[in-house]
Amino acid sequence: MNSYSIAIHGGAGTILKNLMTPEKEMAYRNGLKAAIECGEAILKNGGSAFDAVEAAVIELENNELFNAGKGAVFTHNGLHELDASIMTGYDLRAGAIAGVQNIKNPISLARAVMEKSEHVLLTGNGAIEFAKSVNARFETDEYFYVQLRYDQLQEAKKANSMVLDHTINITETGEKKFGTVGCVAMDTKGNLAAGTSTGGMTNKKYGRVGDSSIIGSGTYANNKTCAVSCTGHGELFMRSVVAYDISCLMEYKNLSLKEACDIVVMDKLVKIGGEGGLVALDSAGNIELAFNSDGMYRASKKHNDSLYIGIYK
Amino acid sequence: MNSYSIAIHGGAGTILKNLMTPEKEMAYRNGLKAAIECGEAILKNGGSAFDAVEAAVIELENNELFNAGKGAVFTHNGLHELDASIMTGYDLRAGAIAGVQNIKNPISLARAVMEKSEHVLLTGNGAIEFAKSVNARFETDEYFYVQLRYDQLQEAKKANSMVLDHTINITETGEKKFGTVGCVAMDTKGNLAAGTSTGGMTNKKYGRVGDSSIIGSGTYANNKTCAVSCTGHGELFMRSVVAYDISCLMEYKNLSLKEACDIVVMDKLVKIGGEGGLVALDSAGNIELAFNSDGMYRASKKHNDSLYIGIYK
Repeated sequence: MNSYSIAIHGGAGTILKNLMTPEKEMAYRNGLKAAIECGEAILKNGGSAFDAVEAAVIELENNELFNAGKGAVFTHNGLHELDASIMTGYDLRAGAIAGVQNIKNPISLARAVMEKSEHVLLTGNGAIEFAKSVNARFETDEYFYVQLRYDQLQEAKKANSMVLDHTINITETGEKKFGTVGCVAMDTKGNLAAGTSTGGMTNKKYGRVGDSSIIGSGTYANNKTCAVSCTGHGELFMRSVVAYDISCLMEYKNLSLKEACDIVVMDKLVKIGGEGGLVALDSAGNIELAFNSDGMYRASKKHNDSLYIGIYK
Repeated sequence: MNSYSIAIHGGAGTILKNLMTPEKEMAYRNGLKAAIECGEAILKNGGSAFDAVEAAVIELENNELFNAGKGAVFTHNGLHELDASIMTGYDLRAGAIAGVQNIKNPISLARAVMEKSEHVLLTGNGAIEFAKSVNARFETDEYFYVQLRYDQLQEAKKANSMVLDHTINITETGEKKFGTVGCVAMDTKGNLAAGTSTGGMTNKKYGRVGDSSIIGSGTYANNKTCAVSCTGHGELFMRSVVAYDISCLMEYKNLSLKEACDIVVMDKLVKIGGEGGLVALDSAGNIELAFNSDGMYRASKKHNDSLYIGIYK
């Protein structure tokens, strides 16, 4: 049997050990472990990287600790607007949705856009209409109501700030977190895939869409080079076309995955103030978990290696 | 005085001379000429490429011949959903909007997103709310009502097709056009800029967004490499991250603008069935007007050269 690889993230930002309780840390670690296991179960049985990515992201979306799906942050209007995208490295097909409400698993709706429409990106009410036409699973507002998130919205409104943070009251701690989840995988056939999902920014207004919906910025996969899923200050990641930049540095400059990630995350993004990180893997299954923030919820597993879970620097 | 360059497009597709009347051809040529002149007037006086791009695109948006602004095609629901993006090559700042209605000049709203919000991409009703907050110019549904476009919607509905075409009854002629407008410019200081605007696809549903709103796909500008504005089958352009791909081929592979455009438009896009084209210029002011379709409405002007206008192959 050929080898497989999988890596996930649950957001990056100012995640400091001295602000974490052992219980909370354990909950995050368990959440990351569960998501890796969902993906790995598929890869181990010869399933596709694409299916593994969707499964791992669904697990993260269903976990209220992470800013995606159930745990999505509140918008300024007290709603949840969800963004997601997914791409397969085999044939460069992709699907994405932006600004949708009440969808239980945005990553699966992004997949449906790819598989059941002629389009790549559907938005807002139109995307909801499409979701109904493909019998996507809807959930009530109550399902998405998480007390911590609601408290964060009130704090953000008080501070009159739009908050990228997703778990810690920044008005008290000054912390920032970029709440997004994502997964990259290589299956035993050597096919790559990548997916990303987010609830965006607490207190966001104006139908703001970040990089998580954007093929080339938040998500990219190409069997020739790599699969990438990003988390961070979306605007900077969009202007930098981060995910495709990694791929181009590998394809056109013959850099290794590590070299490409170092340049983009530790140099180019830093220079423009683009805080965040990404998970990526190349066509040989090498994994990079790169971030320029204080921490990034992350985990990875290669075929015969043991599970890696990281939170801090 | 240093030199300047400007190039525009008004959409690509199956544009055949034997289906064009002399009057119609003259109207298109006059529209393209007027747009170039709007941009050139700014460049000639030492104005910025960014201002020139906005001015040229506004002129095209205000011309009902082109599928953007006033001439935008109808959606399935009989509405007009407008997409646009703009980017400056000097500091890689960008703004974009998607799925907005009743905005007279989407390109100016995209500029406002860049200059007056912390964001890059705003969508739907949220973008409209933002537009109101910056006193963007709104127009009535009547303003956007163009009989030809309405007839195209009825034809498309009859044929049950989603039509990229923007001027010719495809059920009668089998023609396809990708209605989008765009501009790239280099000013006398050597700064580059790019902008793109569209009404999308006739009969489109589901809040579909194409590449015209996507930084890296439909629009990209970077003083180090090039400025690019695309028109074509948006989904394929998004999956190929076309505009940034041109930039990466130049930056990482040291290709010329022409070599990069040839590879992306005439080879990579053709291989995946991505019909369309782009206008681009590099930091020396060299211009490329590349397309793999039968035609592309296009025009360009370099400082001391005469105006070029093209429609067919």
